[in-house]
Amino acid sequence: MAIEQRLQERNITLPDVSAPAAAYVPYVQTGNLLFVSGHIAKKDGKPWVGQLGTNMDTATGRQAAESIAIDLLGTLRAACGGDLNRIQRIVKVVSLVNANSSFTEPHLVTNGCSELLMHILGDAGAHARSAYCVSQLPMGSCVEIELVAELR
Amino acid sequence: MAIEQRLQERNITLPDVSAPAAAYVPYVQTGNLLFVSGHIAKKDGKPWVGQLGTNMDTATGRQAAESIAIDLLGTLRAACGGDLNRIQRIVKVVSLVNANSSFTEPHLVTNGCSELLMHILGDAGAHARSAYCVSQLPMGSCVEIELVAELR
Amino acid sequence: MAIEQRLQERNITLPDVSAPAAAYVPYVQTGNLLFVSGHIAKKDGKPWVGQLGTNMDTATGRQAAESIAIDLLGTLRAACGGDLNRIQRIVKVVSLVNANSSFTEPHLVTNGCSELLMHILGDAGAHARSAYCVSQLPMGSCVEIELVAELR
Repeated sequence: MAIEQRLQERNITLPDVSAPAAAYVPYVQTGNLLFVSGHIAKKDGKPWVGQLGTNMDTATGRQAAESIAIDLLGTLRAACGGDLNRIQRIVKVVSLVNANSSFTEPHLVTNGCSELLMHILGDAGAHARSAYCVSQLPMGSCVEIELVAELR
Repeated sequence: MAIEQRLQERNITLPDVSAPAAAYVPYVQTGNLLFVSGHIAKKDGKPWVGQLGTNMDTATGRQAAESIAIDLLGTLRAACGGDLNRIQRIVKVVSLVNANSSFTEPHLVTNGCSELLMHILGDAGAHARSAYCVSQLPMGSCVEIELVAELR
Repeated sequence: MAIEQRLQERNITLPDVSAPAAAYVPYVQTGNLLFVSGHIAKKDGKPWVGQLGTNMDTATGRQAAESIAIDLLGTLRAACGGDLNRIQRIVKVVSLVNANSSFTEPHLVTNGCSELLMHILGDAGAHARSAYCVSQLPMGSCVEIELVAELR
Protein backbone atom coordinates (compact mmCIF):
# COMPACT_ATOMS: atom_id res chain seq x y z
CA MET A 1 0.00 0.00 0.00
CA ALA A 2 2.23 2.75 -1.31
CA ILE A 3 -0.27 5.48 -0.42
CA GLU A 4 -0.47 4.51 3.25
CA GLN A 5 3.35 4.28 3.36
CA ARG A 6 3.77 7.78 2.00
CA LEU A 7 1.28 9.10 4.55
CA GLN A 8 3.29 7.43 7.33
CA GLU A 9 6.60 8.78 6.00
CA ARG A 10 5.18 12.28 6.27
CA ASN A 11 3.65 11.52 9.68
CA ILE A 12 0.23 12.41 8.32
CA THR A 13 -2.82 11.08 10.11
CA LEU A 14 -5.95 11.62 8.06
CA PRO A 15 -8.94 13.07 9.89
CA ASP A 16 -12.49 11.76 9.68
CA VAL A 17 -14.92 13.70 7.52
CA SER A 18 -15.88 16.98 9.17
CA ALA A 19 -19.55 17.85 9.44
CA PRO A 20 -20.26 20.63 6.93
CA ALA A 21 -20.72 24.09 8.44
CA ALA A 22 -24.06 24.52 6.69
CA ALA A 23 -26.86 22.85 4.71
CA TYR A 24 -24.96 20.49 2.42
CA VAL A 25 -23.07 17.19 2.39
CA PRO A 26 -19.28 16.57 2.22
CA TYR A 27 -19.40 14.77 -1.13
CA VAL A 28 -21.72 13.31 -3.76
CA GLN A 29 -20.86 10.45 -6.11
CA THR A 30 -22.45 10.27 -9.57
CA GLY A 31 -21.31 7.39 -11.76
CA ASN A 32 -17.62 7.06 -10.97
CA LEU A 33 -17.17 10.81 -10.38
CA LEU A 34 -16.95 12.13 -6.84
CA PHE A 35 -17.72 15.81 -6.30
CA VAL A 36 -16.19 16.96 -3.00
CA SER A 37 -17.46 20.10 -1.25
CA GLY A 38 -15.21 23.07 -0.63
CA HIS A 39 -13.07 22.44 2.48
CA ILE A 40 -11.93 25.54 4.36
CA ALA A 41 -8.52 25.70 6.06
CA LYS A 42 -8.64 24.90 9.77
CA LYS A 43 -6.12 25.18 12.58
CA ASP A 44 -6.68 23.41 15.90
CA GLY A 45 -10.17 22.55 14.68
CA LYS A 46 -11.22 26.15 14.05
CA PRO A 47 -11.30 28.19 10.83
CA TRP A 48 -7.75 29.28 9.94
CA VAL A 49 -8.49 33.00 9.70
CA GLY A 50 -6.44 35.29 7.50
CA GLN A 51 -6.24 37.23 4.27
CA LEU A 52 -3.33 37.06 1.87
CA GLY A 53 -1.92 40.48 1.06
CA THR A 54 -3.41 41.87 4.28
CA ASN A 55 -2.24 39.80 7.25
CA MET A 56 -0.90 36.48 5.90
CA ASP A 57 2.11 35.73 3.67
CA THR A 58 2.41 33.26 0.81
CA ALA A 59 4.38 30.69 2.84
CA THR A 60 1.70 30.55 5.54
CA GLY A 61 -1.07 30.40 2.95
CA ARG A 62 0.77 27.49 1.38
CA GLN A 63 0.79 25.66 4.72
CA ALA A 64 -2.93 26.27 5.03
CA ALA A 65 -3.50 24.82 1.55
CA GLU A 66 -1.42 21.76 2.51
CA SER A 67 -3.56 21.25 5.61
CA ILE A 68 -6.65 21.31 3.40
CA ALA A 69 -5.11 18.57 1.22
CA ILE A 70 -4.92 16.38 4.35
CA ASP A 71 -8.56 17.08 5.17
CA LEU A 72 -9.55 16.38 1.54
CA LEU A 73 -7.66 13.06 1.64
CA GLY A 74 -9.56 12.19 4.82
CA THR A 75 -12.85 12.90 3.08
CA LEU A 76 -11.74 10.95 -0.01
CA ARG A 77 -10.79 7.98 2.16
CA ALA A 78 -14.23 7.98 3.75
CA ALA A 79 -15.89 8.24 0.32
CA CYS A 80 -13.77 5.25 -0.80
CA GLY A 81 -14.82 3.09 2.14
CA GLY A 82 -11.38 3.45 3.70
CA ASP A 83 -9.20 2.57 0.71
CA LEU A 84 -7.48 5.48 -1.06
CA ASN A 85 -6.29 3.06 -3.76
CA ARG A 86 -9.81 3.28 -5.16
CA ILE A 87 -8.94 6.76 -6.44
CA GLN A 88 -8.36 6.42 -10.16
CA ARG A 89 -7.49 10.07 -10.56
CA ILE A 90 -7.88 13.50 -9.02
CA VAL A 91 -9.61 15.17 -11.97
CA LYS A 92 -9.95 18.82 -11.00
CA VAL A 93 -9.07 21.13 -8.12
CA VAL A 94 -10.54 24.60 -7.60
CA SER A 95 -8.77 26.74 -5.02
CA LEU A 96 -10.15 29.96 -3.57
CA VAL A 97 -7.63 32.17 -1.81
CA ASN A 98 -8.95 34.85 0.55
CA ALA A 99 -6.92 37.84 -0.63
CA ASN A 100 -7.03 41.52 -1.34
CA SER A 101 -6.47 43.00 -4.78
CA SER A 102 -2.70 43.36 -4.30
CA PHE A 103 -2.01 39.61 -3.96
CA THR A 104 -1.00 37.92 -7.21
CA GLU A 105 0.23 34.52 -5.95
CA PRO A 106 -2.88 32.35 -5.46
CA HIS A 107 -1.20 29.71 -7.62
CA LEU A 108 1.77 29.49 -5.24
CA VAL A 109 -0.52 29.21 -2.21
CA THR A 110 -2.48 26.46 -3.94
CA ASN A 111 0.68 24.49 -4.71
CA GLY A 112 0.68 23.52 -1.03
CA CYS A 113 -2.40 21.40 -1.73
CA SER A 114 -1.51 20.24 -5.25
CA GLU A 115 1.98 19.07 -4.36
CA LEU A 116 0.80 17.02 -1.38
CA LEU A 117 -1.93 15.35 -3.45
CA MET A 118 0.67 14.48 -6.09
CA HIS A 119 3.17 13.27 -3.51
CA ILE A 120 0.72 11.02 -1.67
CA LEU A 121 -1.29 9.70 -4.61
CA GLY A 122 1.47 9.53 -7.23
CA ASP A 123 0.34 9.74 -10.85
CA ALA A 124 -3.29 9.56 -9.70
CA GLY A 125 -2.77 12.88 -7.92
CA ALA A 126 -1.98 15.01 -11.00
CA HIS A 127 -5.00 17.21 -11.70
CA ALA A 128 -6.43 20.04 -13.76
CA ARG A 129 -6.78 23.18 -11.65
CA SER A 130 -7.96 26.74 -11.29
CA ALA A 131 -6.77 29.05 -8.50
CA TYR A 132 -7.84 32.61 -7.83
CA CYS A 133 -8.40 35.24 -5.16
CA VAL A 134 -11.79 35.85 -3.60
CA SER A 135 -12.86 38.75 -1.40
CA GLN A 136 -13.77 36.61 1.62
CA LEU A 137 -14.52 33.02 2.72
CA PRO A 138 -16.83 31.30 5.23
CA MET A 139 -15.90 32.28 8.81
CA GLY A 140 -12.92 34.28 7.58
CA SER A 141 -10.90 31.22 6.56
CA CYS A 142 -7.81 31.98 4.44
CA VAL A 143 -8.24 29.24 1.79
CA GLU A 144 -11.05 26.98 0.53
CA ILE A 145 -10.46 24.07 -1.87
CA GLU A 146 -12.90 21.73 -3.64
CA LEU A 147 -12.19 18.86 -6.02
CA VAL A 148 -13.59 16.29 -8.44
CA ALA A 149 -12.14 12.76 -8.34
CA GLU A 150 -12.65 9.66 -10.47
CA LEU A 151 -13.05 6.42 -8.51
CA ARG A 152 -12.34 2.90 -9.74
CA MET B 1 -46.15 13.84 -7.03
CA ALA B 2 -44.51 14.76 -3.74
CA ILE B 3 -42.34 17.45 -5.34
CA GLU B 4 -45.29 19.28 -6.88
CA GLN B 5 -47.16 19.06 -3.56
CA ARG B 6 -44.29 20.62 -1.64
CA LEU B 7 -44.08 23.44 -4.20
CA GLN B 8 -47.80 24.08 -3.74
CA GLU B 9 -47.54 24.01 0.07
CA ARG B 10 -44.96 26.77 -0.16
CA ASN B 11 -47.02 28.65 -2.77
CA ILE B 12 -44.09 28.46 -5.17
CA THR B 13 -44.78 28.86 -8.88
CA LEU B 14 -41.74 27.95 -10.92
CA PRO B 15 -40.76 30.38 -13.68
CA ASP B 16 -39.90 29.41 -17.23
CA VAL B 17 -36.24 29.42 -18.18
CA SER B 18 -34.90 32.96 -18.48
CA ALA B 19 -32.96 33.90 -21.56
CA PRO B 20 -29.28 34.20 -20.60
CA ALA B 21 -27.95 37.75 -20.32
CA ALA B 22 -25.10 36.97 -22.68
CA ALA B 23 -23.59 34.51 -25.17
CA TYR B 24 -24.35 31.16 -23.56
CA VAL B 25 -27.17 28.68 -22.93
CA PRO B 26 -29.07 27.99 -19.67
CA TYR B 27 -27.91 24.36 -19.38
CA VAL B 28 -26.07 21.58 -21.18
CA GLN B 29 -26.63 17.86 -20.66
CA THR B 30 -23.78 15.39 -21.13
CA GLY B 31 -24.58 11.76 -20.42
CA ASN B 32 -26.89 11.94 -17.42
CA LEU B 33 -25.19 15.02 -15.98
CA LEU B 34 -26.80 18.41 -16.39
CA PHE B 35 -24.58 21.49 -16.05
CA VAL B 36 -26.72 24.53 -15.24
CA SER B 37 -25.39 28.06 -15.87
CA GLY B 38 -24.97 30.55 -13.05
CA HIS B 39 -28.33 32.16 -12.23
CA ILE B 40 -28.17 35.66 -10.74
CA ALA B 41 -30.68 36.81 -8.12
CA LYS B 42 -33.57 38.81 -9.56
CA LYS B 43 -36.36 40.85 -7.99
CA ASP B 44 -39.39 41.89 -10.04
CA GLY B 45 -37.61 40.57 -13.12
CA LYS B 46 -34.53 42.77 -12.72
CA PRO B 47 -31.12 42.02 -11.20
CA TRP B 48 -31.39 42.06 -7.38
CA VAL B 49 -28.63 44.59 -6.77
CA GLY B 50 -26.67 44.67 -3.54
CA GLN B 51 -23.43 43.80 -1.80
CA LEU B 52 -23.19 41.90 1.46
CA GLY B 53 -21.18 43.77 4.07
CA THR B 54 -21.83 47.04 2.25
CA ASN B 55 -25.56 47.58 1.79
CA MET B 56 -27.27 44.20 2.30
CA ASP B 57 -27.57 42.00 5.42
CA THR B 58 -27.32 38.22 5.70
CA ALA B 59 -31.08 37.70 6.06
CA THR B 60 -31.78 39.57 2.82
CA GLY B 61 -28.97 37.76 1.02
CA ARG B 62 -30.51 34.50 2.20
CA GLN B 63 -33.85 35.51 0.65
CA ALA B 64 -32.07 36.31 -2.60
CA ALA B 65 -30.42 32.86 -2.57
CA GLU B 66 -33.82 31.25 -1.96
CA SER B 67 -35.24 33.11 -4.94
CA ILE B 68 -32.42 31.74 -7.08
CA ALA B 69 -33.32 28.21 -5.96
CA ILE B 70 -36.81 28.78 -7.38
CA ASP B 71 -35.35 29.97 -10.68
CA LEU B 72 -32.95 27.01 -10.76
CA LEU B 73 -35.87 24.61 -10.16
CA GLY B 74 -37.69 26.27 -13.06
CA THR B 75 -34.67 25.69 -15.29
CA LEU B 76 -34.30 22.10 -14.05
CA ARG B 77 -37.98 21.42 -14.76
CA ALA B 78 -37.54 22.65 -18.33
CA ALA B 79 -34.40 20.52 -18.76
CA CYS B 80 -36.40 17.51 -17.47
CA GLY B 81 -39.22 18.04 -19.97
CA GLY B 82 -41.53 19.24 -17.21
CA ASP B 83 -41.02 16.45 -14.66
CA LEU B 84 -38.79 17.26 -11.66
CA ASN B 85 -39.00 13.61 -10.60
CA ARG B 86 -36.42 12.92 -13.29
CA ILE B 87 -33.82 14.52 -11.01
CA GLN B 88 -31.82 11.68 -9.52
CA ARG B 89 -29.70 14.01 -7.45
CA ILE B 90 -28.45 17.56 -7.12
CA VAL B 91 -24.74 16.79 -7.30
CA LYS B 92 -22.99 20.10 -6.71
CA VAL B 93 -23.86 23.72 -5.99
CA VAL B 94 -21.44 26.65 -6.34
CA SER B 95 -22.60 29.91 -4.79
CA LEU B 96 -21.00 33.29 -5.41
CA VAL B 97 -21.90 36.00 -2.93
CA ASN B 98 -21.25 39.63 -3.94
CA ALA B 99 -19.52 40.87 -0.79
CA ASN B 100 -16.75 43.06 0.51
CA SER B 101 -13.80 41.71 2.48
CA SER B 102 -15.52 42.15 5.86
CA PHE B 103 -18.35 39.67 5.17
CA THR B 104 -17.66 36.14 6.47
CA GLU B 105 -21.11 34.52 6.11
CA PRO B 106 -21.42 33.44 2.46
CA HIS B 107 -22.35 29.95 3.75
CA LEU B 108 -25.34 31.34 5.66
CA VAL B 109 -26.53 33.33 2.63
CA THR B 110 -26.21 30.22 0.48
CA ASN B 111 -28.28 28.14 2.90
CA GLY B 112 -31.30 29.99 1.53
CA CYS B 113 -30.81 28.09 -1.73
CA SER B 114 -29.56 24.79 -0.30
CA GLU B 115 -32.39 24.43 2.21
CA LEU B 116 -35.10 25.07 -0.37
CA LEU B 117 -33.57 22.52 -2.77
CA MET B 118 -33.47 19.96 0.04
CA HIS B 119 -37.01 20.79 1.17
CA ILE B 120 -38.56 20.53 -2.30
CA LEU B 121 -36.54 17.62 -3.69
CA GLY B 122 -36.11 15.58 -0.50
CA ASP B 123 -33.09 13.26 -0.42
CA ALA B 124 -32.39 14.08 -4.07
CA GLY B 125 -31.77 17.69 -3.03
CA ALA B 126 -28.76 17.06 -0.76
CA HIS B 127 -25.64 18.26 -2.56
CA ALA B 128 -21.92 18.93 -2.33
CA ARG B 129 -21.25 22.67 -2.23
CA SER B 130 -18.80 25.53 -2.25
CA ALA B 131 -19.75 29.09 -1.23
CA TYR B 132 -17.55 32.16 -1.25
CA CYS B 133 -17.47 35.93 -1.66
CA VAL B 134 -16.66 37.58 -4.98
CA SER B 135 -15.88 41.21 -5.63
CA GLN B 136 -18.80 41.81 -8.03
CA LEU B 137 -21.39 40.00 -10.19
CA PRO B 138 -23.11 40.60 -13.55
CA MET B 139 -25.29 43.74 -13.43
CA GLY B 140 -24.54 44.22 -9.75
CA SER B 141 -26.60 41.23 -8.62
CA CYS B 142 -26.08 40.20 -4.96
CA VAL B 143 -25.81 36.40 -5.48
CA GLU B 144 -25.14 34.00 -8.38
CA ILE B 145 -25.59 30.22 -8.10
CA GLU B 146 -24.81 27.40 -10.54
CA LEU B 147 -25.28 23.65 -10.14
CA VAL B 148 -24.66 20.18 -11.54
CA ALA B 149 -27.51 17.65 -11.40
CA GLU B 150 -27.79 13.96 -12.25
CA LEU B 151 -30.90 12.98 -14.22
CA ARG B 152 -32.53 9.57 -14.37
CA MET C 1 -13.05 20.59 -42.05
CA ALA C 2 -15.31 23.51 -41.24
CA ILE C 3 -13.56 24.21 -37.95
CA GLU C 4 -10.14 24.61 -39.55
CA GLN C 5 -11.68 26.82 -42.26
CA ARG C 6 -13.21 29.15 -39.71
CA LEU C 7 -9.89 29.40 -37.90
CA GLN C 8 -8.19 30.32 -41.18
CA GLU C 9 -10.85 32.90 -42.06
CA ARG C 10 -10.13 34.65 -38.78
CA ASN C 11 -6.36 34.26 -39.27
CA ILE C 12 -6.17 32.37 -36.01
CA THR C 13 -3.18 30.11 -35.42
CA LEU C 14 -3.70 27.92 -32.40
CA PRO C 15 -0.80 27.72 -29.95
CA ASP C 16 0.58 24.54 -28.43
CA VAL C 17 -0.39 23.75 -24.86
CA SER C 18 1.39 26.06 -22.43
CA ALA C 19 3.19 24.54 -19.48
CA PRO C 20 1.13 25.28 -16.36
CA ALA C 21 2.54 27.99 -14.11
CA ALA C 22 2.40 25.69 -11.10
CA ALA C 23 1.90 22.11 -9.82
CA TYR C 24 -0.89 20.86 -12.04
CA VAL C 25 -1.60 19.62 -15.58
CA PRO C 26 -3.37 21.44 -18.47
CA TYR C 27 -6.30 18.98 -18.68
CA VAL C 28 -7.60 15.65 -17.39
CA GLN C 29 -9.97 13.35 -19.26
CA THR C 30 -12.39 11.12 -17.34
CA GLY C 31 -14.75 9.03 -19.45
CA ASN C 32 -15.63 11.33 -22.34
CA LEU C 33 -15.43 14.49 -20.22
CA LEU C 34 -12.39 16.72 -20.47
CA PHE C 35 -11.69 19.09 -17.56
CA VAL C 36 -9.44 21.92 -18.74
CA SER C 37 -7.43 23.98 -16.22
CA GLY C 38 -7.96 27.69 -15.83
CA HIS C 39 -6.06 29.56 -18.58
CA ILE C 40 -4.96 33.10 -17.75
CA ALA C 41 -4.91 35.85 -20.37
CA LYS C 42 -1.49 36.40 -21.91
CA LYS C 43 -0.06 39.05 -24.21
CA ASP C 44 3.25 38.51 -26.02
CA GLY C 45 3.70 35.36 -23.96
CA LYS C 46 3.45 37.10 -20.59
CA PRO C 47 0.50 37.50 -18.20
CA TRP C 48 -1.88 40.18 -19.53
CA VAL C 49 -1.93 42.31 -16.40
CA GLY C 50 -4.88 44.52 -15.53
CA GLN C 51 -7.94 44.98 -13.39
CA LEU C 52 -11.37 45.87 -14.75
CA GLY C 53 -12.83 48.94 -13.10
CA THR C 54 -9.34 50.07 -12.08
CA ASN C 55 -7.09 50.26 -15.13
CA MET C 56 -8.76 48.25 -17.93
CA ASP C 57 -12.03 48.82 -19.79
CA THR C 58 -14.65 46.29 -20.88
CA ALA C 59 -13.56 46.32 -24.55
CA THR C 60 -9.98 45.44 -23.63
CA GLY C 61 -11.12 42.78 -21.16
CA ARG C 62 -13.21 41.31 -23.95
CA GLN C 63 -10.13 41.09 -26.19
CA ALA C 64 -8.27 39.35 -23.39
CA ALA C 65 -11.11 36.82 -23.03
CA GLU C 66 -11.03 36.21 -26.77
CA SER C 67 -7.28 35.54 -26.61
CA ILE C 68 -7.95 32.96 -23.88
CA ALA C 69 -10.46 31.23 -26.18
CA ILE C 70 -7.66 30.78 -28.71
CA ASP C 71 -5.37 29.31 -26.06
CA LEU C 72 -8.18 27.03 -24.84
CA LEU C 73 -8.78 25.83 -28.41
CA GLY C 74 -5.06 25.08 -28.66
CA THR C 75 -5.24 23.00 -25.50
CA LEU C 76 -8.42 21.27 -26.69
CA ARG C 77 -6.79 20.42 -30.00
CA ALA C 78 -3.86 18.82 -28.18
CA ALA C 79 -6.24 16.88 -25.94
CA CYS C 80 -8.07 15.67 -29.07
CA GLY C 81 -4.87 14.41 -30.71
CA GLY C 82 -4.96 17.30 -33.19
CA ASP C 83 -8.57 17.02 -34.38
CA LEU C 84 -11.01 19.60 -32.99
CA ASN C 85 -13.88 17.71 -34.68
CA ARG C 86 -13.62 15.26 -31.80
CA ILE C 87 -15.29 17.89 -29.58
CA GLN C 88 -18.87 16.79 -29.15
CA ARG C 89 -19.74 19.82 -27.08
CA ILE C 90 -18.31 22.57 -24.89
CA VAL C 91 -20.29 21.76 -21.75
CA LYS C 92 -19.41 24.48 -19.27
CA VAL C 93 -17.29 27.62 -19.09
CA VAL C 94 -16.31 29.40 -15.86
CA SER C 95 -14.83 32.86 -16.31
CA LEU C 96 -13.05 34.82 -13.57
CA VAL C 97 -12.63 38.51 -14.23
CA ASN C 98 -10.03 40.41 -12.18
CA ALA C 99 -12.10 43.42 -11.12
CA ASN C 100 -12.83 45.78 -8.29
CA SER C 101 -16.23 46.07 -6.65
CA SER C 102 -17.43 48.79 -9.03
CA PHE C 103 -17.29 46.64 -12.18
CA THR C 104 -20.59 44.97 -13.08
CA GLU C 105 -19.85 43.68 -16.61
CA PRO C 106 -17.97 40.38 -16.19
CA HIS C 107 -20.56 38.79 -18.52
CA LEU C 108 -19.68 41.23 -21.32
CA VAL C 109 -15.95 40.62 -20.87
CA THR C 110 -16.56 36.87 -20.96
CA ASN C 111 -18.53 37.12 -24.21
CA GLY C 112 -15.18 37.63 -25.94
CA CYS C 113 -14.41 33.97 -25.17
CA SER C 114 -17.91 32.54 -25.53
CA GLU C 115 -18.58 34.13 -28.91
CA LEU C 116 -15.31 32.91 -30.40
CA LEU C 117 -15.94 29.34 -29.15
CA MET C 118 -19.40 29.44 -30.71
CA HIS C 119 -18.10 30.95 -33.96
CA ILE C 120 -15.30 28.41 -34.42
CA LEU C 121 -17.05 25.28 -33.15
CA GLY C 122 -20.59 26.02 -34.35
CA ASP C 123 -23.38 24.28 -32.40
CA ALA C 124 -20.77 22.31 -30.45
CA GLY C 125 -19.51 25.60 -29.03
CA ALA C 126 -22.72 26.62 -27.17
CA HIS C 127 -22.12 26.13 -23.45
CA ALA C 128 -23.47 26.63 -19.96
CA ARG C 129 -21.54 29.37 -18.17
CA SER C 130 -20.83 31.32 -15.03
CA ALA C 131 -18.92 34.62 -15.02
CA TYR C 132 -18.00 36.75 -12.04
CA CYS C 133 -15.45 39.17 -10.64
CA VAL C 134 -12.60 38.04 -8.41
CA SER C 135 -10.27 40.18 -6.33
CA GLN C 136 -7.06 39.06 -8.08
CA LEU C 137 -5.61 36.36 -10.37
CA PRO C 138 -2.28 34.54 -10.76
CA MET C 139 0.51 36.96 -11.73
CA GLY C 140 -1.97 39.83 -11.97
CA SER C 141 -3.65 38.54 -15.14
CA CYS C 142 -6.91 40.29 -16.04
CA VAL C 143 -9.02 37.19 -16.87
CA GLU C 144 -8.86 33.43 -16.22
CA ILE C 145 -11.15 30.92 -17.93
CA GLU C 146 -11.62 27.16 -17.43
CA LEU C 147 -13.97 24.75 -19.18
CA VAL C 148 -15.44 21.26 -19.35
CA ALA C 149 -15.85 19.64 -22.78
CA GLU C 150 -17.41 16.40 -23.98
CA LEU C 151 -15.36 14.45 -26.52
CA ARG C 152 -16.64 11.95 -29.07
